[in-house]
Amino acid sequence: MEMPTPDATIMGRKAAIVAGLEALLPKDAVISDPHETRAYECDGLSAYRCPPLAAVLPANTEEVAAILKFCHAEGVPVVPRGSGTSLAGGALPTADSIILGVSKMADVLETDYANRIIRVQTGRTNLSVTGAVEEDGFFYAPDPSSQLACAIAGNIAMNSGGAHCLKYGVTTNNLLGVTMVTMEGEVVEIGGAHLEAAGYDLLGVICGSEGQLGVVTEATLRILAKPEGARPVLMGFDSNEVAGACVSDIIKAGVLPVAIEFMDRPCIRACEDFVHAGYPDVEALLIVEVEGSDDEIDEQLEKIIEIANRHNPVELRESTGPEQSALIWKGRKSAFGAMGQINDYMCLDGTIPVSELPYVLRRIGEMSGEFGLDVANVFHAGDGNMHPLILYDANKPGDLETCEAFGAAILKLCVEVGGCLTGEHGVGIEKRDLMLDQYAPADIAAQMAVKDVFDPAWLLNPAKVFPLATSASRRVA
Amino acid sequence: MEMPTPDATIMGRKAAIVAGLEALLPKDAVISDPHETRAYECDGLSAYRCPPLAAVLPANTEEVAAILKFCHAEGVPVVPRGSGTSLAGGALPTADSIILGVSKMADVLETDYANRIIRVQTGRTNLSVTGAVEEDGFFYAPDPSSQLACAIAGNIAMNSGGAHCLKYGVTTNNLLGVTMVTMEGEVVEIGGAHLEAAGYDLLGVICGSEGQLGVVTEATLRILAKPEGARPVLMGFDSNEVAGACVSDIIKAGVLPVAIEFMDRPCIRACEDFVHAGYPDVEALLIVEVEGSDDEIDEQLEKIIEIANRHNPVELRESTGPEQSALIWKGRKSAFGAMGQINDYMCLDGTIPVSELPYVLRRIGEMSGEFGLDVANVFHAGDGNMHPLILYDANKPGDLETCEAFGAAILKLCVEVGGCLTGEHGVGIEKRDLMLDQYAPADIAAQMAVKDVFDPAWLLNPAKVFPLATSASRRVA
Repeated sequence: MEMPTPDATIMGRKAAIVAGLEALLPKDAVISDPHETRAYECDGLSAYRCPPLAAVLPANTEEVAAILKFCHAEGVPVVPRGSGTSLAGGALPTADSIILGVSKMADVLETDYANRIIRVQTGRTNLSVTGAVEEDGFFYAPDPSSQLACAIAGNIAMNSGGAHCLKYGVTTNNLLGVTMVTMEGEVVEIGGAHLEAAGYDLLGVICGSEGQLGVVTEATLRILAKPEGARPVLMGFDSNEVAGACVSDIIKAGVLPVAIEFMDRPCIRACEDFVHAGYPDVEALLIVEVEGSDDEIDEQLEKIIEIANRHNPVELRESTGPEQSALIWKGRKSAFGAMGQINDYMCLDGTIPVSELPYVLRRIGEMSGEFGLDVANVFHAGDGNMHPLILYDANKPGDLETCEAFGAAILKLCVEVGGCLTGEHGVGIEKRDLMLDQYAPADIAAQMAVKDVFDPAWLLNPAKVFPLATSASRRVA
Repeated sequence: MEMPTPDATIMGRKAAIVAGLEALLPKDAVISDPHETRAYECDGLSAYRCPPLAAVLPANTEEVAAILKFCHAEGVPVVPRGSGTSLAGGALPTADSIILGVSKMADVLETDYANRIIRVQTGRTNLSVTGAVEEDGFFYAPDPSSQLACAIAGNIAMNSGGAHCLKYGVTTNNLLGVTMVTMEGEVVEIGGAHLEAAGYDLLGVICGSEGQLGVVTEATLRILAKPEGARPVLMGFDSNEVAGACVSDIIKAGVLPVAIEFMDRPCIRACEDFVHAGYPDVEALLIVEVEGSDDEIDEQLEKIIEIANRHNPVELRESTGPEQSALIWKGRKSAFGAMGQINDYMCLDGTIPVSELPYVLRRIGEMSGEFGLDVANVFHAGDGNMHPLILYDANKPGDLETCEAFGAAILKLCVEVGGCLTGEHGVGIEKRDLMLDQYAPADIAAQMAVKDVFDPAWLLNPAKVFPLATSASRRVA
């Protein structure tokens, strides 16, 4: 992956820039020692690393505004960072940029059960949003696998989903309003504690804009009442394609489970070795979960199991209680960690129409042979959000490049069948050049024109989302 | 309401402009005779009327592109029009503008049950989208009261909701992709048959932008499997405030009916006289509907009725069968027509946090005394989307002005309690000056900058959404 050339003028002014930031913030909120900035050199896409010029850790919206105003005046690029769990390089610095980390901003500002909302600072982790309301019977629905660590700021930037988003939607469906600071240091309020916007609804374009339009410092989130109960069922099949066809049939029938998760043999084995979830020894596994009262659960599972039986499952097992349910999910949620124990891998993220699942799974299998690299599949099948993990050896020359080429071929396949080259991980640096496969030049130009509005000098989270040459040409020196 | 001054140069060039349009389109697709353009002089906000310079009725995306390209080159404003049911003047022409009506574009382009989508031309009416799929057990969820007449184009422009949007969301939650033509005549594809967007998600900002960013010619919509059954229950209360408190408690408890509709005494009486729905003689009525199997319905209604009983209802009546259910809904859906039979009225549209319902209903009652005009309330209470109908006499001098002042005061109240000055009807001309009450100058500037991107000359649907002086200053001559 090509990295942008750092701006020599900025690099030469490091001392003055750091001094300027130190004048705006408490002493320990500015990190410029090269040993310490290394902590910010990469995110979850750790194949690419680059320490930033400096990092700042503001405590509130006012400090964020002061930082951005200063950096805008000085022409210094800023890379916002949540918890750094991005798998697409969304928080990767450039050498001439300032990392703006929101980790200190983790307060709950307001809970309002009557209107079912919570307002938080965006450095708060996803799981601790639910943590703040669960004793009162509520939860925050989007649940990325990284939910223990990932920040709401990053969830908003990437429009994150999760296993249970089939029923509850992704971040954009659960976000009601934000306080955002533009690159020029202006504080704007977008949306609020209601579902509608007067005039244009800018919230939708902010959500998923990968930190390129502004830094979101506070968010009003919708919280939901916890369902009475939930029950997963494990379904084992003797091929990926049959499991894919079963998913497509469940969706087509109009049943709406809260989650349909898919794992293939390599992934099942790795998870089983890692957490002993009790998964059966099959080619492909579905975890289908439904919610409600016991009666509602029984009724929904009856329909789902009837559909599954048409596909000759080799295993069909309802959870018998809360411990078993927790174990089933623990296996799934540790899939990436489990795979990481046994292999280097690149985790892809593409979305396809659910009806194309059997075809796409077969083609990925064939391409695995063509490229000579193994693939493990684990993903949110119900909404067609795939996460093929391509296994490679980081110490073997050329393997990473082959892996990247294979990944690009899979994402192009997603676009070909009418899907999208990203689901919930974003474009970041990983997929910026593939944007040309997804979009016509006029479509990309419209997106870039929106960036012009919010960040005319193109200083915010540079070198991402758009093809490198295109976005470099936009940068105002 | 102040109307913009027509551009004398454009008015003087009418013959040439019409000839230019006739060269692009079939003969009967251009309407320029003053007797015929009168058909397009107003929409549902019929207090304001202005015939357009001409009207065009294209049959497909290519014709729309040709029209817009021509008008852009000639500097002629264009007002897109669905079925003209807007209640906020969203389709009101200016004298120097061309009405672009999409009514001829009503085809179904694709139905795909496996992926639960339908793709239509946007002139198709809302109800006939469901009509195209209901034999196969599916439906399109957003259901504005005008669903028999209103076009998908208008639904997208206003982000329309409806009675059942409490559960299923509004248009933006059911729209997957659009084909849109920009004012410059460029055709862009935004979104698609999947839930995610790579790069920025422009679909959210297109939906609800009131036809000011482009003309949407085709739409990919999500369709849902019809629920097994549904049952409404009527709840009568002896005051608006108590009914409002009951709604707030239902929402707070986390039960999710598909609809909670509210009607007060004047509205109940008018509907009862109009369609004989069998409504009880009470101060305030709620229609609460739940869906599912019989067991699921029983279980949900049990919880809801338990909450209602805490508020001492004077009437509580479950529907006993499909005919009665249909009648209950017929009453509600004909509310605006019924009120129109007995009075001139202005229908407002604001959104508030549900917990503020009792307070806002009391204040509206008090303000009714202050302004000396009666109010009837009928609205989607579950999601806080209010529709107060202010009754006035169109033949009495000054009454319309008092009515407008009262309406503005109610919408300001909505903003004060943390709500929004529009729900599903849009800003149009009706609320453009109130935008300054909702937004800070920086927020409005951000929205206007987005308009600059899509329509740099500010020719598309002029004199709406933004305060008149502001948007006039932006117009490129």
